[in-house]
Amino acid sequence: MRTDGRSLNETRKVKITRDFTKYAKGSILIETGETKVIVTASVDEKVPPFKKDSGTGWITAEYSMLPSATAERNSRDIQKLKLNGRSAEIQRLIGRCIRAGFDMDKIGERTIQIDCDVIQADGGTRTASITGAFVATVIAIAKLMDEGLIKENPVKSQIAAVSLGKVGGEIMTDLCYEEDCRADVDMNLILDGDENIVEIQGAAEHGTYKKAELDALFELGAASIRKLFEAQRAVMTENELSLLK
Amino acid sequence: MRTDGRSLNETRKVKITRDFTKYAKGSILIETGETKVIVTASVDEKVPPFKKDSGTGWITAEYSMLPSATAERNSRDIQKLKLNGRSAEIQRLIGRCIRAGFDMDKIGERTIQIDCDVIQADGGTRTASITGAFVATVIAIAKLMDEGLIKENPVKSQIAAVSLGKVGGEIMTDLCYEEDCRADVDMNLILDGDENIVEIQGAAEHGTYKKAELDALFELGAASIRKLFEAQRAVMTENELSLLK
Amino acid sequence: MRTDGRSLNETRKVKITRDFTKYAKGSILIETGETKVIVTASVDEKVPPFKKDSGTGWITAEYSMLPSATAERNSRDIQKLKLNGRSAEIQRLIGRCIRAGFDMDKIGERTIQIDCDVIQADGGTRTASITGAFVATVIAIAKLMDEGLIKENPVKSQIAAVSLGKVGGEIMTDLCYEEDCRADVDMNLILDGDENIVEIQGAAEHGTYKKAELDALFELGAASIRKLFEAQRAVMTENELSLLK
Amino acid sequence: MRTDGRSLNETRKVKITRDFTKYAKGSILIETGETKVIVTASVDEKVPPFKKDSGTGWITAEYSMLPSATAERNSRDIQKLKLNGRSAEIQRLIGRCIRAGFDMDKIGERTIQIDCDVIQADGGTRTASITGAFVATVIAIAKLMDEGLIKENPVKSQIAAVSLGKVGGEIMTDLCYEEDCRADVDMNLILDGDENIVEIQGAAEHGTYKKAELDALFELGAASIRKLFEAQRAVMTENELSLLK
Amino acid sequence: MRTDGRSLNETRKVKITRDFTKYAKGSILIETGETKVIVTASVDEKVPPFKKDSGTGWITAEYSMLPSATAERNSRDIQKLKLNGRSAEIQRLIGRCIRAGFDMDKIGERTIQIDCDVIQADGGTRTASITGAFVATVIAIAKLMDEGLIKENPVKSQIAAVSLGKVGGEIMTDLCYEEDCRADVDMNLILDGDENIVEIQGAAEHGTYKKAELDALFELGAASIRKLFEAQRAVMTENELSLLK
Amino acid sequence: MRTDGRSLNETRKVKITRDFTKYAKGSILIETGETKVIVTASVDEKVPPFKKDSGTGWITAEYSMLPSATAERNSRDIQKLKLNGRSAEIQRLIGRCIRAGFDMDKIGERTIQIDCDVIQADGGTRTASITGAFVATVIAIAKLMDEGLIKENPVKSQIAAVSLGKVGGEIMTDLCYEEDCRADVDMNLILDGDENIVEIQGAAEHGTYKKAELDALFELGAASIRKLFEAQRAVMTENELSLLK
Repeated sequence: MRTDGRSLNETRKVKITRDFTKYAKGSILIETGETKVIVTASVDEKVPPFKKDSGTGWITAEYSMLPSATAERNSRDIQKLKLNGRSAEIQRLIGRCIRAGFDMDKIGERTIQIDCDVIQADGGTRTASITGAFVATVIAIAKLMDEGLIKENPVKSQIAAVSLGKVGGEIMTDLCYEEDCRADVDMNLILDGDENIVEIQGAAEHGTYKKAELDALFELGAASIRKLFEAQRAVMTENELSLLK
Repeated sequence: MRTDGRSLNETRKVKITRDFTKYAKGSILIETGETKVIVTASVDEKVPPFKKDSGTGWITAEYSMLPSATAERNSRDIQKLKLNGRSAEIQRLIGRCIRAGFDMDKIGERTIQIDCDVIQADGGTRTASITGAFVATVIAIAKLMDEGLIKENPVKSQIAAVSLGKVGGEIMTDLCYEEDCRADVDMNLILDGDENIVEIQGAAEHGTYKKAELDALFELGAASIRKLFEAQRAVMTENELSLLK
Repeated sequence: MRTDGRSLNETRKVKITRDFTKYAKGSILIETGETKVIVTASVDEKVPPFKKDSGTGWITAEYSMLPSATAERNSRDIQKLKLNGRSAEIQRLIGRCIRAGFDMDKIGERTIQIDCDVIQADGGTRTASITGAFVATVIAIAKLMDEGLIKENPVKSQIAAVSLGKVGGEIMTDLCYEEDCRADVDMNLILDGDENIVEIQGAAEHGTYKKAELDALFELGAASIRKLFEAQRAVMTENELSLLK
Repeated sequence: MRTDGRSLNETRKVKITRDFTKYAKGSILIETGETKVIVTASVDEKVPPFKKDSGTGWITAEYSMLPSATAERNSRDIQKLKLNGRSAEIQRLIGRCIRAGFDMDKIGERTIQIDCDVIQADGGTRTASITGAFVATVIAIAKLMDEGLIKENPVKSQIAAVSLGKVGGEIMTDLCYEEDCRADVDMNLILDGDENIVEIQGAAEHGTYKKAELDALFELGAASIRKLFEAQRAVMTENELSLLK
Repeated sequence: MRTDGRSLNETRKVKITRDFTKYAKGSILIETGETKVIVTASVDEKVPPFKKDSGTGWITAEYSMLPSATAERNSRDIQKLKLNGRSAEIQRLIGRCIRAGFDMDKIGERTIQIDCDVIQADGGTRTASITGAFVATVIAIAKLMDEGLIKENPVKSQIAAVSLGKVGGEIMTDLCYEEDCRADVDMNLILDGDENIVEIQGAAEHGTYKKAELDALFELGAASIRKLFEAQRAVMTENELSLLK
Repeated sequence: MRTDGRSLNETRKVKITRDFTKYAKGSILIETGETKVIVTASVDEKVPPFKKDSGTGWITAEYSMLPSATAERNSRDIQKLKLNGRSAEIQRLIGRCIRAGFDMDKIGERTIQIDCDVIQADGGTRTASITGAFVATVIAIAKLMDEGLIKENPVKSQIAAVSLGKVGGEIMTDLCYEEDCRADVDMNLILDGDENIVEIQGAAEHGTYKKAELDALFELGAASIRKLFEAQRAVMTENELSLLK
């Protein structure tokens, strides 16, 4: 029996609210149970130095938690003058995964800047960020196409992510914070629309795990991500859906 | 005629949502028109060094804007390794004003840490932060009293704030961003429940202003703040209201 | 009776020494009682990015205290890698106030960089900085006009500043440090030559204050500033005085 | 045919030199082809705050590259005042993986600080760091046991790591830098002595990959790691080997 | 013929003003020609960690230039978040040299913190800082002895410093900035009262120099320092002079 | 009798290994007894701002110690966000000394970036860095000449450095760490091929020293440096040697 009464293969309720804030090109609030993340996609008509004059674009992400997002208040990075190591790791992951869903050549020489700001954290903030970031990016892309700034559909595939784990000997999906703390294995699975792997990260700090368990986690994760794909599509407009093929 | 059709003495709609996030002792979302600020009050059972072993408490504030809160994305402080100068100025103001409403001796040797995170900025973010911070702090104080950690009511007075300005020759209340950009005089007025002054800041970058105009701005501001006091009280519980005397 | 025997409406002796250092375009030492600030105005033939190619100029200020300027040594900002929050607030105030006295269009696309370095602090360092900065800026402007770099007189009005307060129930002008520590209300008033308001900041951390007290503080401040205007003019050359109308 | 003539399942020559430097408790140089990393394990008789008074120990890691370790000189972190994001990600990985091999309770309340300094980088620096860090840590642990500071053997399992990838459509092991740049899939596999998974990270920036490919990469990686286990044991003393059971 | 008409062995006029600021235990302004440095010695009843519980004291120094101290304004360290490399080098030199003049054991477990703030720089700021710092430290020490905090005279010897150089083929003393820029050899010589060497630093960026030239520079420097010793003694009280033996 | 049995005028065994790493233009490992420093010379086809469009080149150096290079682990600069003051001082010294050996005009508008990374520290790391940096720079210069990027031989003279000291009353050369800790006088002598002085730094923290001792230290140092010149030449190719004239 899980903390919140769910069965092992049951994901938490996902709610995506479009246009949660009004200034960014794409903006959503994603809620996965008690986890809440504001995800925005802003467009910058410049690219980083390594892409300068390449004619191709870039997607990058930043991730941060509000100080009050966790049970114990966490201090702001600027207080310590250091980007939190965990945030550094997560925002690199988000950037890599979202880039996998889009064709950089077709985006043109501009940057899509994703911001994932966690306002409440109850486990799975990085996977919620990725799932939300895909939607925010598609919203932004659709507008750029409407405005004629992007000519060809750059969407390669739908992308979504789920966290999985082995807790108390059981393989389960979409861990809440309390389960995450007790987990022996902690996995983040990111798939594309054909259930191909974009990225998999599976770590075992308290004891290792077998390849067969990895396989089971993968199966469970793929099933969960199918539901996330539906949740993503449910909030998209016809126009946006048409970009997904 | 104002940008959004309001009359000169008309404030924007204020909406305060209690318990917007669940971990901080006190947490609200305050919306003033299109300005939206998450304000939380967290309790830390420690005090800063200059208060150590004094038996008295402290209230302090931090203020920040999400990168996507403004029409043009603003980069995170941690990217530049510097606290934004404007944020530094604002968070000092919030801290001073909220401290004016509470008796530090009665709070006991603990810190109430206020976090004001602007998720959408359309003018008046600092005054919305103060108005919201008062509510979040009272919510936190009421819980601390319920828990027996604070014995005596530390609330000295209700505190709220409004922005005012002279725009195109007209004195007006509660400026939206577009008005703020065109303002000749920009004032922030913070009053207590007896309409005494907690702090007044009135600056004129584009031309100076007369004492008579300051008087007019004050009168207009006092009237606006009366409405904000009502909005604050409207979301408080009986228990919390009883602390306001 | 005040700490140093002054009457309530009596300012401390102000002494402005021209050309205190030799390299900056304008350089003065301002002494207000025991408060001593070196204020310089340097000219940089560049403007900040937001003024680039605008044809108009900019005036900005930095404020800092020597470590030994206070009774208890204060550590350097660079030791903590953080600009002191109080300094951030003060230097923004100085910049705003001095800009109010000059026409940015007539300065041309260059920056006047004001540096206020407090070598001894006995209260009123920010207002002394503003009063001194006006003189240093006029000295620099006069030289730029002599050199033909500025064609039209950019001086809009004389600017000076005084601190005021309510201490032990009494309204008084030009607080020394000891009075400042005991003050219930702490006000900074900055006026132009017609006694119009450039900026007013009045804060009450220990108890609030009434509008009538604000009016009394204003009256007292205006009288004090008249004397500061005289002190500023007393050290100016004929040439510089001619720029003040 | 691979860049350096190897077959797809052929790892580069691994050379571990013990006692490469003399001050740290454990110190080795690990060379994997042209990749060279100095790995040291230092002992600090303190623990981080979150372990204070827990009676249990901690293992943590730092990773850095010399400026001249890469074809194009990379500037030092201190020049930018920022820990490189890639380094932040890698050092967290190293720490997690090495902790998986040791029992924190048996280490006692002390910290084993691992430093991985890459002096020459030709791909696979993070996996070489992990493989080397296991040896350096065992050397340090063995000395601490000799000195009587650790009473019970804290080694839970041998740990080693290999990088894998899909390059030009081919699954291959132990990528050199040139292959890494061209890789469609980039995987890091870290196993324990029973070929259980400590951590797996498999990312696809240029196109996704199938679960069957993950399985193939895993198989290839497991075979490569068996050789790394031999290389680790080959440089250990009888005493150290006895700790591996 | 030198820039300012001096002969080769002629030092600039030295003027030391006691009690230039009032808060630090010891405070002087030292002027060497157009070079002006405020030097203060503050007392902190703590010692750095490496001296904790040693019963002995410490003397340390910080050196900084005001932004307007030089012909071209130099930006503040805090703007770049980096202590200027030249300042880092100089303040280490000042600390070493002043420590050589005092017995750390007799100072007791406290720190004398020297601050050298250059308000105008025309060459020789580091040597003026050292010469001034010796006086400020003796003033502070004499007060600490008066107050009974230091029991035994900790002064070991008088310390002073001069800059020397080879400019246009000529050996000369006390270089002004213009000479310093043209110098082939740049030397800083710090001697004690018996003309023993505390520190010598002689660098040749534009061409090297012969040992015989070093000897000549030393002789010239020793003669100059004798005059500086007199200048130091001329501003000391009887009480302070008695500490020099 | 010295710590390691050497006579007073006996230097430790010096070993220079060419091409220690493969990416930098010039790369060596220098070992002086137990002191080991990796020194590389990288070429950047840009110059710092103050050399822009001057047609002349620049040589600059960075110095750092690996955390595990010392008996007690030293934390990385990035952990404290501050360049170690000692490192700042040393890297400025290295830059100055190496620049003395080369003609900036003949290098052309490019920068030779020297990196000195100490992997094991047993005294004399800064002098070993200089001695090694000369070799690494010559290797790089020779390659640039082979590639036709530098036309004229820019080598002005051979440069090497030795540390000296007065320990327990005895003048001795090439101090190891243990001697360095006990030294009354600590000197760094850098000479060119004609035994002219490039830089001399002689400090006495524990007691001062006489001019006659400086002379003795110089003589001893000059003799030691003759041996270092031989060690440098011994690893150079015919081609490189020809550049030394």
